[in-house]
Amino acid sequence: MNKIITIGREFGSGGRELGRRLARELNFDYYDKEILSEIAKHTSLSEEYVQQVVENQPRQLYPITVGRSFLYVDTQPLQQASTVFQAQQQIIREMAERSDCVIVGRCADYILREMKPFRIFVYADLQSRIERCRSRAAEGENLSDREYKQQIQSVDKSRARYYDFYTDMKWGDKLNYELCINTTGQDIPALAGFLARIFK
Amino acid sequence: MNKIITIGREFGSGGRELGRRLARELNFDYYDKEILSEIAKHTSLSEEYVQQVVENQPRQLYPITVGRSFLYVDTQPLQQASTVFQAQQQIIREMAERSDCVIVGRCADYILREMKPFRIFVYADLQSRIERCRSRAAEGENLSDREYKQQIQSVDKSRARYYDFYTDMKWGDKLNYELCINTTGQDIPALAGFLARIFK
Repeated sequence: MNKIITIGREFGSGGRELGRRLARELNFDYYDKEILSEIAKHTSLSEEYVQQVVENQPRQLYPITVGRSFLYVDTQPLQQASTVFQAQQQIIREMAERSDCVIVGRCADYILREMKPFRIFVYADLQSRIERCRSRAAEGENLSDREYKQQIQSVDKSRARYYDFYTDMKWGDKLNYELCINTTGQDIPALAGFLARIFK
Repeated sequence: MNKIITIGREFGSGGRELGRRLARELNFDYYDKEILSEIAKHTSLSEEYVQQVVENQPRQLYPITVGRSFLYVDTQPLQQASTVFQAQQQIIREMAERSDCVIVGRCADYILREMKPFRIFVYADLQSRIERCRSRAAEGENLSDREYKQQIQSVDKSRARYYDFYTDMKWGDKLNYELCINTTGQDIPALAGFLARIFK
């Protein structure tokens, strides 16, 4: 069976960089945003739309009485979210069956649970996440600490909502991961090097 | 500066065994119950009493009005707890200054914060902790799952109360550790071997 490492991560914690470097060190395939393009191909939805669904759903929840009332409810967004999630499941499973790999986000830890992936969660304190966001900001972006804090909290909230909805588990809860790694004050390339030794 | 690894652990998670094995792999000194004997020597209190204080304090808290009222409050237990904690701080600092070491429990992560220890928290799901307790039970001990669960929760509650009281942080909160390790379904000797590679 292939070796699968899944990475959940708080926004701004460097989890994506850690995953990419870890994959490179181990010579594993690496999947992150590639998954969105694949979903787009499978579903004939645009990549932008898929991204929007993945990042913002499930916001549209319909009342529990639906089907038993004549109330009109627009279920299309929910159906599309469900289509996207099903495509995502299929693609992630295919990726995991193809080769050893590192997969970032997308509930891969849950989707692949029967393959017993090694599940990592990456986090850091708020100040170091703000600094990381600032150091990687696009030219001309000039946000205050408060604005970065809002952005970080908003993205994390979406990730938690998405994860909790599809997995029925709690995003970031230690018990859902084999290893939780605090990147506060750590050098990510060095950390990837250390971590890789565990899997070699 | 010496390399210091501190280990906090949920009861029954195998954190102590992991720490002991890690120390052996790395050829580091290892401190756990030794700290209690040292405290007993420093304070002229019996080792049993020190253990009781460390495991059960701070249960005796006095009301916030004390000192402003004539209400009689027996402050001796609190004073002794404070004496024990001060001795513990001193002993743990001496140990950390002496050599590379692994220290289990006793708020060592907080006490040594200025030496930047590598802080590990070890945890596992409840069922595997119950099984671990049962496999290590004294001969003739025959507890039900429910009784083990109560024991585990009671010890963890004491540890959390002790840690939160002296450190003003939250025991087991990811942010207080560099690494959190889930031992559910893991082989502890193998895990210690993997971990040791990080520090070599």
